[in-house]
Amino acid sequence: MQDESFMRLALELAQQGIGQTSPNPAVGAVIVKDGCVVGMGAHLKAGEAHAEVHAIQMAGEKARGAEIYVTLEPCSHYGKTPPCAELLIESGIKRAVIASQDPNPLVAGNGIALLKAAGIEVTKGVLEKEALSLNKFFFHYIRTGTPYVTLKAASTLDGKTASKSMDSKWITGELAREDVHRYREMHDAVLVGVNTVLFDNPSLTCRLKNPKKQPIRIILDRELKTPLNSQAVTDGQAETWIVASEQADPGRVSALEDLGAVIISLPRMHSLEDILRELGARGITSILAEGGSEIHGSFIKEGCFNEMVLYIAPKLLGGRESLSISGGPGFEWMKDAIDLEFQETAVLGKDIKITAIRKEGE
Amino acid sequence: MQDESFMRLALELAQQGIGQTSPNPAVGAVIVKDGCVVGMGAHLKAGEAHAEVHAIQMAGEKARGAEIYVTLEPCSHYGKTPPCAELLIESGIKRAVIASQDPNPLVAGNGIALLKAAGIEVTKGVLEKEALSLNKFFFHYIRTGTPYVTLKAASTLDGKTASKSMDSKWITGELAREDVHRYREMHDAVLVGVNTVLFDNPSLTCRLKNPKKQPIRIILDRELKTPLNSQAVTDGQAETWIVASEQADPGRVSALEDLGAVIISLPRMHSLEDILRELGARGITSILAEGGSEIHGSFIKEGCFNEMVLYIAPKLLGGRESLSISGGPGFEWMKDAIDLEFQETAVLGKDIKITAIRKEGE
Repeated sequence: MQDESFMRLALELAQQGIGQTSPNPAVGAVIVKDGCVVGMGAHLKAGEAHAEVHAIQMAGEKARGAEIYVTLEPCSHYGKTPPCAELLIESGIKRAVIASQDPNPLVAGNGIALLKAAGIEVTKGVLEKEALSLNKFFFHYIRTGTPYVTLKAASTLDGKTASKSMDSKWITGELAREDVHRYREMHDAVLVGVNTVLFDNPSLTCRLKNPKKQPIRIILDRELKTPLNSQAVTDGQAETWIVASEQADPGRVSALEDLGAVIISLPRMHSLEDILRELGARGITSILAEGGSEIHGSFIKEGCFNEMVLYIAPKLLGGRESLSISGGPGFEWMKDAIDLEFQETAVLGKDIKITAIRKEGE
Repeated sequence: MQDESFMRLALELAQQGIGQTSPNPAVGAVIVKDGCVVGMGAHLKAGEAHAEVHAIQMAGEKARGAEIYVTLEPCSHYGKTPPCAELLIESGIKRAVIASQDPNPLVAGNGIALLKAAGIEVTKGVLEKEALSLNKFFFHYIRTGTPYVTLKAASTLDGKTASKSMDSKWITGELAREDVHRYREMHDAVLVGVNTVLFDNPSLTCRLKNPKKQPIRIILDRELKTPLNSQAVTDGQAETWIVASEQADPGRVSALEDLGAVIISLPRMHSLEDILRELGARGITSILAEGGSEIHGSFIKEGCFNEMVLYIAPKLLGGRESLSISGGPGFEWMKDAIDLEFQETAVLGKDIKITAIRKEGE
């Protein structure tokens, strides 16, 4: 139980790095001697010191003979920083409590093996579920090479995201809309289809007071219909990447590039999976897909997403021609629908927020 | 506080009558003397004794000088039973604690006035909100003459109630489907459109173990397309009423009547409001409207419903041609959508249940 309580503190420290350590995982470390915390640390930014380094620095000589609680297996390889496993050995740590093993093939058990070989007692799996969930983006990315995709939508209680006249302002209240900004901050990128840009001309920025970072804006736009004067292209608030077909008009490509947009050209018949692989190769570990309806429909039909967050407003709109939150071809039979598991139901002002995770495969 | 605790017991007693006292309200009564409960009663069936009668019978001579807790103002008129207010006076009750006034214009404060005139101390409004909610069907019916309408639907997380091939079996799990049967038991009638009968041929019965009653089955079917061999017409499990246009084929009318169905003929251009008024006149105080999509769309567009219960399954189906839970013409603008207030969010197995009440007007 004491192990859990110190690990919970380490997870709390790790949590502070969420949204700013990409492409690294968020990690927290706590050093305990004779029941007292003597060192604490967190990894805060890729290229900067790991959690263990901060914690051992803080502990100083007290690290000798102490226990370390760390949310992720200490690294064993020389990356931008020297391996933490060696540092732990040098500093005289006698026991290491580790929440989850590192899925990174460069580490994967090697860190733990190094510690054990040096005579350090190792306890694995304390609050493992919480640690896996904390770094779900990173773990998915390391395993698959593609970003973790969260689908985000807002609808009335009868599942409508816009009226037949395409009116959708506003479905949900302020607290729900603010929560979306937390999701934008958490993810490396925000993704929309070009129709959303054409209809709503959104800025897609994170408008929290002091955001940890601005997510990259990604527009799926085979034919480069994104207007040159659209907010996402001109406002300079964040990077904008546009995924187009190789057949798109070269003049349009240079015009958008001149405005600072990054054009990613893929073969004409590319799938969402192809897009995610390309974005993964470019270092994007997580994406918040904000629609519209046809984009969500494609993610669902192609089965390439990990999670859904839905804000439901206490309204009924009706209308067989109103817009549903998911379009696309859809599945022919209910049994083919993609299975989720509900995670959380929360009340946000007058609205309800539901989160659900894909049940099998990723 | 002691008042609240005895009133809570009275509400608990009243609760037992829900679903079986229509067109009367469910009422509970508790008699207390020197801090001890000496009598308890509930109204269990229209035409049978009122809650106060049972409680006073149980208390016998102890009623003299005692306090009575009753969830609804005692009646003051001669109906199927003599007025309870007089009984309270005769039995020597010295204080009456009443949760809610009776909205029935035949009572409406007269009961309370009688008690006061006889020197009984009256306290009003203890747990009034709970008492109003308990008899929300009755209060709505008494005020408007039309039944309280609950819209019920089941959908995937992306708001689909059937695939484009009209497959909807099953969206939700067993616990959610069982909960629907509790809703059927609670309401006087279950209502569907004829398309639901044509597609699903449902029995629409309450399949709890020992249901308090079977709700009347109401089919909205202007042209009398209900098949003569459909379950609701032939199974004899409950009454079946079919609302048709006066222009419907008379041969069809007699064929359905011969099978035991009640045909309600309304002018060709009748609205949902006309239907509800006619059903109210026939003593229906509450309706569970189970769809389909077009029926829900009409209730929403015409604004003649009171509550919605939605079961959401952890599935994503996608599909611009999949069926939404509400069709019909819908509203043109989001600001015209009907405002609700969320009441309850519950987990039922792997599904989520959301209930919401209409915010203004009824």
